[in-house]
Amino acid sequence: MDFSLSPELIALRDRVRQFIAEQVIPLENDERQSHHGPSEALRRELVARGKAAGLLTPHASRELGGMGLTHVEKAVVFEEAGYSWLGPTALNIHAPDEGNIHLMEEVATPAQKERWLRPQVAGEWRSCFAMTEPSPGAGADPSMLATTAVRDGDDYLISGDKWFITGAEGAHYAIVMARMEDGSATMFLTDMDREGITLVRNMDAMDACFAGGHGVLRFDDVRIPAADVLGEIGKGFRYAQVRLAPARLTHCMRWLGQARRAHDTALNYARQRHAFGKPLAEHEGVGFMLADNDMDLTTARLHIWHTAWLLDQGEKGNFESSRAKVVCSEAEWRVVDRSVQILGGQGVTGETPVMRIFTDMRAFRIYDGPSEVHRWSMARKLVHMADKAAAAPEAGA
Amino acid sequence: MDFSLSPELIALRDRVRQFIAEQVIPLENDERQSHHGPSEALRRELVARGKAAGLLTPHASRELGGMGLTHVEKAVVFEEAGYSWLGPTALNIHAPDEGNIHLMEEVATPAQKERWLRPQVAGEWRSCFAMTEPSPGAGADPSMLATTAVRDGDDYLISGDKWFITGAEGAHYAIVMARMEDGSATMFLTDMDREGITLVRNMDAMDACFAGGHGVLRFDDVRIPAADVLGEIGKGFRYAQVRLAPARLTHCMRWLGQARRAHDTALNYARQRHAFGKPLAEHEGVGFMLADNDMDLTTARLHIWHTAWLLDQGEKGNFESSRAKVVCSEAEWRVVDRSVQILGGQGVTGETPVMRIFTDMRAFRIYDGPSEVHRWSMARKLVHMADKAAAAPEAGA
Amino acid sequence: MDFSLSPELIALRDRVRQFIAEQVIPLENDERQSHHGPSEALRRELVARGKAAGLLTPHASRELGGMGLTHVEKAVVFEEAGYSWLGPTALNIHAPDEGNIHLMEEVATPAQKERWLRPQVAGEWRSCFAMTEPSPGAGADPSMLATTAVRDGDDYLISGDKWFITGAEGAHYAIVMARMEDGSATMFLTDMDREGITLVRNMDAMDACFAGGHGVLRFDDVRIPAADVLGEIGKGFRYAQVRLAPARLTHCMRWLGQARRAHDTALNYARQRHAFGKPLAEHEGVGFMLADNDMDLTTARLHIWHTAWLLDQGEKGNFESSRAKVVCSEAEWRVVDRSVQILGGQGVTGETPVMRIFTDMRAFRIYDGPSEVHRWSMARKLVHMADKAAAAPEAGA
Amino acid sequence: MDFSLSPELIALRDRVRQFIAEQVIPLENDERQSHHGPSEALRRELVARGKAAGLLTPHASRELGGMGLTHVEKAVVFEEAGYSWLGPTALNIHAPDEGNIHLMEEVATPAQKERWLRPQVAGEWRSCFAMTEPSPGAGADPSMLATTAVRDGDDYLISGDKWFITGAEGAHYAIVMARMEDGSATMFLTDMDREGITLVRNMDAMDACFAGGHGVLRFDDVRIPAADVLGEIGKGFRYAQVRLAPARLTHCMRWLGQARRAHDTALNYARQRHAFGKPLAEHEGVGFMLADNDMDLTTARLHIWHTAWLLDQGEKGNFESSRAKVVCSEAEWRVVDRSVQILGGQGVTGETPVMRIFTDMRAFRIYDGPSEVHRWSMARKLVHMADKAAAAPEAGA
Repeated sequence: MDFSLSPELIALRDRVRQFIAEQVIPLENDERQSHHGPSEALRRELVARGKAAGLLTPHASRELGGMGLTHVEKAVVFEEAGYSWLGPTALNIHAPDEGNIHLMEEVATPAQKERWLRPQVAGEWRSCFAMTEPSPGAGADPSMLATTAVRDGDDYLISGDKWFITGAEGAHYAIVMARMEDGSATMFLTDMDREGITLVRNMDAMDACFAGGHGVLRFDDVRIPAADVLGEIGKGFRYAQVRLAPARLTHCMRWLGQARRAHDTALNYARQRHAFGKPLAEHEGVGFMLADNDMDLTTARLHIWHTAWLLDQGEKGNFESSRAKVVCSEAEWRVVDRSVQILGGQGVTGETPVMRIFTDMRAFRIYDGPSEVHRWSMARKLVHMADKAAAAPEAGA
Repeated sequence: MDFSLSPELIALRDRVRQFIAEQVIPLENDERQSHHGPSEALRRELVARGKAAGLLTPHASRELGGMGLTHVEKAVVFEEAGYSWLGPTALNIHAPDEGNIHLMEEVATPAQKERWLRPQVAGEWRSCFAMTEPSPGAGADPSMLATTAVRDGDDYLISGDKWFITGAEGAHYAIVMARMEDGSATMFLTDMDREGITLVRNMDAMDACFAGGHGVLRFDDVRIPAADVLGEIGKGFRYAQVRLAPARLTHCMRWLGQARRAHDTALNYARQRHAFGKPLAEHEGVGFMLADNDMDLTTARLHIWHTAWLLDQGEKGNFESSRAKVVCSEAEWRVVDRSVQILGGQGVTGETPVMRIFTDMRAFRIYDGPSEVHRWSMARKLVHMADKAAAAPEAGA
Repeated sequence: MDFSLSPELIALRDRVRQFIAEQVIPLENDERQSHHGPSEALRRELVARGKAAGLLTPHASRELGGMGLTHVEKAVVFEEAGYSWLGPTALNIHAPDEGNIHLMEEVATPAQKERWLRPQVAGEWRSCFAMTEPSPGAGADPSMLATTAVRDGDDYLISGDKWFITGAEGAHYAIVMARMEDGSATMFLTDMDREGITLVRNMDAMDACFAGGHGVLRFDDVRIPAADVLGEIGKGFRYAQVRLAPARLTHCMRWLGQARRAHDTALNYARQRHAFGKPLAEHEGVGFMLADNDMDLTTARLHIWHTAWLLDQGEKGNFESSRAKVVCSEAEWRVVDRSVQILGGQGVTGETPVMRIFTDMRAFRIYDGPSEVHRWSMARKLVHMADKAAAAPEAGA
Repeated sequence: MDFSLSPELIALRDRVRQFIAEQVIPLENDERQSHHGPSEALRRELVARGKAAGLLTPHASRELGGMGLTHVEKAVVFEEAGYSWLGPTALNIHAPDEGNIHLMEEVATPAQKERWLRPQVAGEWRSCFAMTEPSPGAGADPSMLATTAVRDGDDYLISGDKWFITGAEGAHYAIVMARMEDGSATMFLTDMDREGITLVRNMDAMDACFAGGHGVLRFDDVRIPAADVLGEIGKGFRYAQVRLAPARLTHCMRWLGQARRAHDTALNYARQRHAFGKPLAEHEGVGFMLADNDMDLTTARLHIWHTAWLLDQGEKGNFESSRAKVVCSEAEWRVVDRSVQILGGQGVTGETPVMRIFTDMRAFRIYDGPSEVHRWSMARKLVHMADKAAAAPEAGA
């Protein structure tokens, strides 16, 4: 067992930390942001800085221009990047692109990679992942997928409505999940300017950290040639899993950085602001919250590292990434909520970055599977494993 | 013991409920709102509707044109009004005016009432309450009051900085808390257009329900004649208590309405949205949250009713209103947080009113004393009461 | 609305309080107790004291020798009695007899009352309620009832296994729930010395406050004449509800007394024990727990009073008594757990009564329906009510 | 980073697991147990089995006959041993002996080791650690130490009262903490049969897993020669830290085994017991609790492993062992409490081992520093570290 980081990883972590502090945080109050996230101009400036620092798209393979980070290395780097809400954009590791890049590397053909992935890894293009649908379509339960793909000659015609599509506005291409005539699902690649694709509106969301916001899309007989199918026909649900287990975990990593930022802000305030005769931090009521923050941050980090290590060993880690997602999303949220409470009025106004973190992070307990769905899937797996153990010949009580 | 409402109160409750449903909720998406609350034009339209419905400023005395509601009656009416975030504005019972009206009725001279209170009760003017200060001034600990009042002939010169002053922008008058040369505190009344008063800026707050937002004010040798002292010199802290005990409770009442709205929204969604083969509400994970919501709503309502009844009996109720404030702010918050979770994506976007309620309500656990300050003051009182009981001659174990 | 107690009720409350302090608490360390509760000898001494004080079986009707207390009056009296774990025995209001007495008053024939109820109300006899069964019989789900009643001439033959039967050892009579041949359920009355009834063993339970402990019973072709059917054939499940709604609530009342005792013990300790330079109670970490205790005790009491009042109005109160059961069992448990924590080593040893209260009370979150079953039943009811409201002609959003 | 266990450690873990299952769990219902723990006869039988299996005192150095386990190895082995409440006794790794052995190895002279430590490592003798005192002496705050040591020629005379002294009855020797005339503290070694040492009584404790229970001791001018001072005069508080940091962590390890046992018991029950038409485990309300158990167990294990690894690197780990103690004691307790809830009646009776685990484990949140003291010490350290960071030349915001 070994919890140490290699000297190279420590050096990389420190470089990212310095980059965020010096190049990214100073842009946090830049006006080129709206409640639909940083504008394309701001994004390009951030990406340029990330590139200049040699830190762009570090999770992509070296062939494509990344650093080919392992999951454990990502855990360390993404936490640092997440210390600023603009950090993931600057390193080109924000959702949904980070997960899309991973999926494309795993599944796309060389031609598809050349066409869509290379400019994305270079930070020139963004993408979106079009899976979630309005009721009664696919939400927490992906099996309710309603968007259809119908064979038409060598092409497919895609029709349906999607929403909560992060980054849709301004994305260059989309990965679209659709239901085949036999009930299976397939992923399709398409440029966003294809005929039949409409950005109906950009939703009014609580968070403001994702470039492009969250869009409502309509697909109206969008014609997609067979060459643009991502992977194999009918394997959409399987690929969704390929994408999701690590994608869930990278959310945990980035938000851990945000939670740490909130905690640091609250800790600094509590050391300096006095009330009832002493600094806030010397009141047990506040001190206990700071201690709880430290516990929750460490708990989240340990689950992330453990699960990342499992993925690096080649395990699928579906159970463990579900577990990490619930643990981290809830622990990190508690940290931010406590930080707001410690900061008082400064926690609920723009006087500190913590208000932004609070409103940005609430959705994390919901997307990529709400806590309830993960708890349920964990329960079934626990029962299944116990059933198997009980059926084994050597099973005891 | 009797938990029933009088027929008159039931009739009034139903009138308010209908008014909110028919006259107020339809305006919730009105564009005359910003993150600094409803605009003055929207406020005037809401007040006009409240007046037409005969429901304006119902907590004010009949002499001033109100209904002279008891605390218990307020509990019922304010909960209904709070069902919409515009409701308190429409009934002229929003913070800080509601508490200011109460304080003015208790303490102001007839001339002061005629000058400032009467137009406020009529819904024409708004006011603000200028107590909170930036560090190292008065925050959760009011004894750190730094704004000074210096006698100058028959006048007082007020100087100091205030922030988080709800409703400051657009307020007609302010109640200003300042420290006297002997260390005591006094409340002063002043029109907001007096020389020396500057609205430095309006803060960027998470909530958006208070007309006028939350301002930063500078008082720079503001000259206030002795006739504009509110009540007696040196009694500022005492009056703050007169204002606070009921003001805390009316927050609990209005937010209970918002929490109920969030729960109703989530319940309706959970009945209709299907996942994994049945409506969400038939999943225990969701059903348990709905049950917990009902428990928390009832707990909050019972504490409100109980404390309101005590105030109606003439008790000061400082301990009980502290207790109700902590219980309600935390229970109502849990309801809203669970409702967001049940609604999933619709809880973190403008698709439902619940996102607004979530961001509007977070500060409630902080203002009028954060939970931690109330817990601490309760603890001291519990010890004090136990000390007294132990000292009594008949004290047993 | 009125939260006041009548002068008569206050006087009764004070009498009970004094009786518990002077006549019951001094017996708490009496050696005639085991982990199966107080012995019959101790029970008789307690009952004699209760009788001498004129406080025996106060919930029974005046006809039978009780005081005919309303539900609200019971709320006040039972809380006081519950201040000592021997108090409910002394007043003859312990479970399951208290609920059995209520059920018998509602349903039994005059002859049955004369035979079984009168001596029970007089404190001479105890009874038990034989419903719960080992797997795969009736547990949290009563519909799984496996004990059978087969018609044989004018009699019924009862066969089956029961466990967790509180008070079985030493009980004079039992109310037995059995399944009829048509699938319905019926309640039967039987003396415990009838042929075919075996006390298989007394279970080793965490609690030690119920006279007779918790027994395992076997019914083996027990012959019961038709005259001993309780109420009507086939109405067993309905009567179980008649018994349960108020019985649940009286548990809440008695345990509220125990929780208050734990809190008082912890508060006294925290006032006197010093650590780190001041009394424990002056540490915020401890003071906050004391404040939380006060909040939870008040929350429990308000729910009890509210539900008791509803029952006094003639409402069935199934929903509300479920809600009160969950709220109270969880709030009262938190109080006791915090009190243990404040007391430190003295909370986990016999140095104070709190260890006993802790081990006695844990089962309360389980019996009369675990929290999970009540939450589920509340959820269904909430959905049902919302469905009805939505179907009503005037229904709005 | 590496979360893998070496093949040797896996083999050792499996041997311990098999030993516990085959040699220890069958003795759990042995009658030679009381609420003061296993009798000496039962302890000797367990130790004999542990010795025969080659697993006795594995944490002791090889010189003394142990295995010289690292902290990480202890983490794995102690969790397995803790799966049965008799396991730690069988492996001679129970508290307080485990911590005493560690302290003696670090501090005792060769002669002291020969005299006291060698027979203890061999499982022949037990010891106790006499630090805690009744009010107003040393409790959670060790600085209140009241027992005195007065120099008398070459000897010291020890006088004072101690309580909650685990294992006192039947212990062969004690480590006694006493205050010197200059206010510092010193640890003394003494056989328990020395003149002046009285076991006043054995306390009535909630737990029943520690051989010898928890005693009240009186030291009355006990004469201890200078040769029996443990380590140096005046270093008692420092040695208490040497003992405590790892001792806290071994509690976390052993109780993790008990918590896992409770979870396994609940999981098996939930798979088999049906209610409302399906196995309990298929109810979300139960399944969520099982998932939460898995999260809490994993969280505890990760904190233990991480802190053990730090100690293995030679770090003091005071902050981290405080953190692990709070996290583990609370997470493991939640697991046991949920397991009780899932088991229903079987969780609060001797039908399963979980009732025993519940009553045995409650004190863990209190001893070796209650959660509140650790949170407070963590808070001070967090502030101290932030102060240092802020004072550093390169410190940013």
